[in-house]
Amino acid sequence: MTGAKVYLKLENLQMTGSYKERGALNRIARLDDDERARGVVASSAGNHAQGVAYHATRLGIRSTIVMPTYTPLIKVTSTRRYGADVILHGDSYDAAYAEARRIADETGAVFVHPFDDPAIVAGQGTVGLELLEQNPYLDAVVVPVGGGGLIAGMAIALKAINPRIRVYGVESAAMPGMKRSLEAGHVVSIAAQRTLAEGIAVRRVGDIAFDICRQSVDDIVTVDDEEIASAVLTLLEVEKTVAEGAGAVALAALMAERLPVKGKKVALVLTGGNIDVTVLARIIQRGLVKDGRMGRFEVALPDVPGALARLTDVVARAGANIMHITHNRAFIRGPLGETIVTLELETRSHDHITEILGVLTGEGFNVTAS
Amino acid sequence: MTGAKVYLKLENLQMTGSYKERGALNRIARLDDDERARGVVASSAGNHAQGVAYHATRLGIRSTIVMPTYTPLIKVTSTRRYGADVILHGDSYDAAYAEARRIADETGAVFVHPFDDPAIVAGQGTVGLELLEQNPYLDAVVVPVGGGGLIAGMAIALKAINPRIRVYGVESAAMPGMKRSLEAGHVVSIAAQRTLAEGIAVRRVGDIAFDICRQSVDDIVTVDDEEIASAVLTLLEVEKTVAEGAGAVALAALMAERLPVKGKKVALVLTGGNIDVTVLARIIQRGLVKDGRMGRFEVALPDVPGALARLTDVVARAGANIMHITHNRAFIRGPLGETIVTLELETRSHDHITEILGVLTGEGFNVTAS
Repeated sequence: MTGAKVYLKLENLQMTGSYKERGALNRIARLDDDERARGVVASSAGNHAQGVAYHATRLGIRSTIVMPTYTPLIKVTSTRRYGADVILHGDSYDAAYAEARRIADETGAVFVHPFDDPAIVAGQGTVGLELLEQNPYLDAVVVPVGGGGLIAGMAIALKAINPRIRVYGVESAAMPGMKRSLEAGHVVSIAAQRTLAEGIAVRRVGDIAFDICRQSVDDIVTVDDEEIASAVLTLLEVEKTVAEGAGAVALAALMAERLPVKGKKVALVLTGGNIDVTVLARIIQRGLVKDGRMGRFEVALPDVPGALARLTDVVARAGANIMHITHNRAFIRGPLGETIVTLELETRSHDHITEILGVLTGEGFNVTAS
Repeated sequence: MTGAKVYLKLENLQMTGSYKERGALNRIARLDDDERARGVVASSAGNHAQGVAYHATRLGIRSTIVMPTYTPLIKVTSTRRYGADVILHGDSYDAAYAEARRIADETGAVFVHPFDDPAIVAGQGTVGLELLEQNPYLDAVVVPVGGGGLIAGMAIALKAINPRIRVYGVESAAMPGMKRSLEAGHVVSIAAQRTLAEGIAVRRVGDIAFDICRQSVDDIVTVDDEEIASAVLTLLEVEKTVAEGAGAVALAALMAERLPVKGKKVALVLTGGNIDVTVLARIIQRGLVKDGRMGRFEVALPDVPGALARLTDVVARAGANIMHITHNRAFIRGPLGETIVTLELETRSHDHITEILGVLTGEGFNVTAS
């Protein structure tokens, strides 16, 4: 599919569903007895929260996680289940972050940063060590980039062992913080944008990560939401594995041919699988449309008996399955005596959709793809 | 979650996405040169088709697969991609089966049965051998049952090595062919019914499998579609792995506490992951409803400014997120000046739904759960 020999590093199979617990564990394991007694505090709407909560509890340390108030219930519930005290505060990550810092100052609890901390970067770097243990002959590694902790730790580990290995980063096109910072020559803040890859939607990359990336990362590329949806769908259907949006960007970059890896042995880090299943259901729809496996058509029909039967007959002969059909009489703006039928069809490809349009037009139907 | 120590055998990670290729390979590998030259033929709308196509092509043998005409495009396409000649014939599995038999008689191609063949049963039994290699201390193994080839092969393998191991089968409650046959003391045909577990929707279990099950299987239990949907959802969310309906019935049986395995080491065979993603999207919805994580409410509101604002305020205080809201003025049958609002809420549990109903009723709203 990609022209490369692809290996997937399935960090979605970690206990808390993402690689984040590596850094969190490394940070927490280094606390001295006094720090352990004071507990830890972190801010996160997602994977970092669960990683900190799980390993703190496992080591008998109290954890407090500040989450933005809009955080999905399922993430709040699972973070509580891992043993953390969850505080819902503020309507942005930045507000939750400020509150966590305030709590740390007030109570003496140790703040565990999600990426800009040497112990976190080193913990994430263990992904790189494992990759080379499992496959010493890799040519390249592709890594999702949010705050940059993972790619920084991995680049150090990978290049120390094999300086010729290529390390590529992938960001969401909506929030390319590391790419912009590298172009500017210093860390820049970018605007918050909606993206399917919410796990790497970071407004300001880490200073530590920036310095390491400038020296050791070969390139940073971006992918858009359509490409991410298509990669999530491919992982579900072909690999039978669940990736969250951020976890699928490395595959998305390969599928979009954004990296020079043809014929190479390439490891992709599938960073996490904590996706809201309702989002997953929407991604499935988007991915099908993107791949030309679902097409929507609007057809103007004379409102006479037999018209719909003729239409469905032509569609069947064009080799498409009808998944959904709506026949809308009441609300159309066209001439009286005409009705608009919306067809959702299961199709084979974009070419197939074009072919169906051609067949319908050839049979005299007034049709548009929508 | 289940009170047992659970191991999953991930047959969804096989090349063709299910265990079926084990039996198909074993059958095809035993063909003599003359049979190989004549090719193989099979009938299947699913996993058996792909298993036969893949291994026949790999061994340089021509394969013809007869599929019912209603077979989803994606399955037709992937079976062709594995190198088979696909013939669409008939509007039921039985019709496709008859056509495949006819082709075998006419052309001399070797018919590869999906389950009622000793070589197929033996091939599927390798799942049992691997399980005991990987974990010699298992107390019980739970196996989905369709035609019975898998559980028969596994029961022989498992009990030959460890006669004390328990082997349980799980069928769809809609089509409990093996359970009925064991009760009757002979193989009985059952009516075709729709089920989420289409991969084990078999009208007549195999004669070979029946004889083996009668001797070696400890119990057969059934699960319904709601339970299957909930298990598919759990595998997606907790294990980050994709199961088709039939592949999830073993976990469904454990989650429904239908088997005496509390405190035991239990292996579940996740037989396959070839699920139509549009079905997956629907299962996600059903699973959320089943688990009390999505609730639908209808509320009658006076059609005056502020009524909706008051409703949403009460909902927010009850701790539920609004996922979807429709405000239907035109088509209701109630009194004029009243409007029906349908709320789809993200909820925490069935208790939470009851609680929300109580809060809304207590605030004077006329509300029903739907």
